[in-house]
Amino acid sequence: MNVNPKRFLSDLHALRQIGASGVGKGVVRPAFSEMDVAARDWLCVKFSEIGLTPYIDPVGNTFGLAEGKSILIGSHTDTQPEGGWLDGSLGVICGLELARAAMESGGPAISVVSFQDEEGRFGVTTGSALWAGTLSLDQADGLTDAQGVAFLNARNWMPNRAREFLNPNSFSSFIECHIEQGPWLHEASEKIGIVSDIVGIRDCTITFEGEQNHAGTTPMHRRKDAFQALSKFIKEVNDRFQNVVVPSTVWTTGHVDLHPNAHSIVPGRCSFSMQWRDGDRTRLDRMEEIIRETADEVATEMLMQVTIGPVLGIKPTSMDDNIQAELCYAAEDICPGKWRKMTSGALHDAANVSSLMPTAMLFVPSINGISHDFAEDTDETDLITGLQVLAKTIQQL
Amino acid sequence: MNVNPKRFLSDLHALRQIGASGVGKGVVRPAFSEMDVAARDWLCVKFSEIGLTPYIDPVGNTFGLAEGKSILIGSHTDTQPEGGWLDGSLGVICGLELARAAMESGGPAISVVSFQDEEGRFGVTTGSALWAGTLSLDQADGLTDAQGVAFLNARNWMPNRAREFLNPNSFSSFIECHIEQGPWLHEASEKIGIVSDIVGIRDCTITFEGEQNHAGTTPMHRRKDAFQALSKFIKEVNDRFQNVVVPSTVWTTGHVDLHPNAHSIVPGRCSFSMQWRDGDRTRLDRMEEIIRETADEVATEMLMQVTIGPVLGIKPTSMDDNIQAELCYAAEDICPGKWRKMTSGALHDAANVSSLMPTAMLFVPSINGISHDFAEDTDETDLITGLQVLAKTIQQL
Repeated sequence: MNVNPKRFLSDLHALRQIGASGVGKGVVRPAFSEMDVAARDWLCVKFSEIGLTPYIDPVGNTFGLAEGKSILIGSHTDTQPEGGWLDGSLGVICGLELARAAMESGGPAISVVSFQDEEGRFGVTTGSALWAGTLSLDQADGLTDAQGVAFLNARNWMPNRAREFLNPNSFSSFIECHIEQGPWLHEASEKIGIVSDIVGIRDCTITFEGEQNHAGTTPMHRRKDAFQALSKFIKEVNDRFQNVVVPSTVWTTGHVDLHPNAHSIVPGRCSFSMQWRDGDRTRLDRMEEIIRETADEVATEMLMQVTIGPVLGIKPTSMDDNIQAELCYAAEDICPGKWRKMTSGALHDAANVSSLMPTAMLFVPSINGISHDFAEDTDETDLITGLQVLAKTIQQL
Repeated sequence: MNVNPKRFLSDLHALRQIGASGVGKGVVRPAFSEMDVAARDWLCVKFSEIGLTPYIDPVGNTFGLAEGKSILIGSHTDTQPEGGWLDGSLGVICGLELARAAMESGGPAISVVSFQDEEGRFGVTTGSALWAGTLSLDQADGLTDAQGVAFLNARNWMPNRAREFLNPNSFSSFIECHIEQGPWLHEASEKIGIVSDIVGIRDCTITFEGEQNHAGTTPMHRRKDAFQALSKFIKEVNDRFQNVVVPSTVWTTGHVDLHPNAHSIVPGRCSFSMQWRDGDRTRLDRMEEIIRETADEVATEMLMQVTIGPVLGIKPTSMDDNIQAELCYAAEDICPGKWRKMTSGALHDAANVSSLMPTAMLFVPSINGISHDFAEDTDETDLITGLQVLAKTIQQL
């Protein structure tokens, strides 16, 4: 079975043009945006051309189905609000080339998938979580994005959706190829990372409600300033986490929304995101306790209301041992000594799909570890190495 | 000279309808918005009806001019993004009624003004600062609002502007009537505050630039998280201010803008407002030093860039002693024992105009001290008391 690197790269660049940012190789294609839907339409045309049957499930997960039981290869084609060209797209186009090469040269039956909203405009890896049942459709339909758009509305913008989710028994296994998004492979000049585990992640929105007032006439001791509550919360959480975390634990407040957000008004409301990741479920629990206790204490001390929204997330997950072994064998054959086993600090659709079927992941290097940014990139020779390791692996499954 | 309270309240409610928020008596009429321009058009019609000549200067300050040298009465009709019906509008409609009553019954010549952008969409009391020359037109034209709109563009949306600023020598004095916007008069059941001084204010935008990256794959010790820099800055500034401030000093971060503001991305850039107010210029200086030192230290420690935008502001200002004396005399006559002299913790156009001519201010109570909020309100009998004190005062000038 022979993959065609030139055709593979050509498809990857064609997909990049849909929502190209105008800055470097950046792409702006958030889930359910016009450009995201256009990319999925383009994929369906590609699937038809090579003999796969396009199938879009009720939440926008976009499949190209081979006949009979097949190996599923893919990732996602939605991007962050400012994203790179490879994150997600690489895994989907690997699937497209592998399915095509397998058809041409008698390889195994390969289906392809682009999951919807992996980047979490609404939830966390929303599309694959819904397929895996770790998130219910009722829950998901009530989720809203940062502008208040509901998931229920957004998914209705996708044309040609089917009424039913696919039966996962149609697939024997799932493999996701992805850029590492961290610095380790690049710094070590290695070519391939075989993922042993994916860290768990939890994510919620917290809101402090104080009292909106005039920034000149309200003395400091009479204020209920919701932004000052956030500042105090961040400092306290950072301090209290020190006794709990390990070097690989991460936590992030990436979204902040003050109301009414004007220089001369004491902010009466402050909503913000709190996200934390770790490979150990007990530690994730302990961090959640600290977050809840701290939010309550700050609110009580500053005479405010606090609400903590639903905590979305995914448990730490191990990848399938058998597929891992085949990936290691193929990597050692294609780039001897230039690969490693590693934990994924980023969340991936593979974490959800692993509850449905044997699942594995492989990484290629990210230049300087940069991702979720227009500057995200990988040497094209490394992209091809990833494709070749995959091709060798699927012939052994 | 007899003012007509019913006509005065009717005009005040008519103005409230232009940009009415739909919540209580709230008004949404930010400077240069469609509703702000509509309110100024309405004012010009009113001016013409009562025999004043409408005049809009190059930056949108809207005058109704009496013939010959006149007393100028007014304030501003623009509002905060979510504002009340009285803030600013009260002073302008007081001017309208006084000018009309003076024409009818042989009072002194009264002109009226509604200054533009008092609420600081672009700067700080932008329109009156430009007239007073404390802000140059070149500086102002480069200022942008929170959405990046330039003042130069915004002022070009105002129709019928003149090419020249008015000569301040056309006016003998300026009096501004305003709601207190603080709790003191309301809590003491007093009716009138005569302003002795207006606190000084400084305001700037500070930006930390770190590095945008993936919130799962970037270890904590390798991050340059611009929001964490803000949190650290706020804590440090709060601590360091304690040795410098007095109980009446206030400082506020009311605006925060993270980039790209997504849950799963370490924020690479964070811009925020810093505003501080005090009656003592030396203390304002010392606070500015602390802000600059702290921002630099945090940026250095966290390996980031920091930029501090232009510091806009107004010096602490004393009101004219003679007009103050007349206001006190009138207040004691109309509401004996129910008035006080006080400092204004809020900034007002009067602070700028005081450099051009003898200037004074009087306050009426704010219910529960609430302002810059849809809930802002004042008993209508208190509004009329303010108008009557003004009417008595101008007959003595």
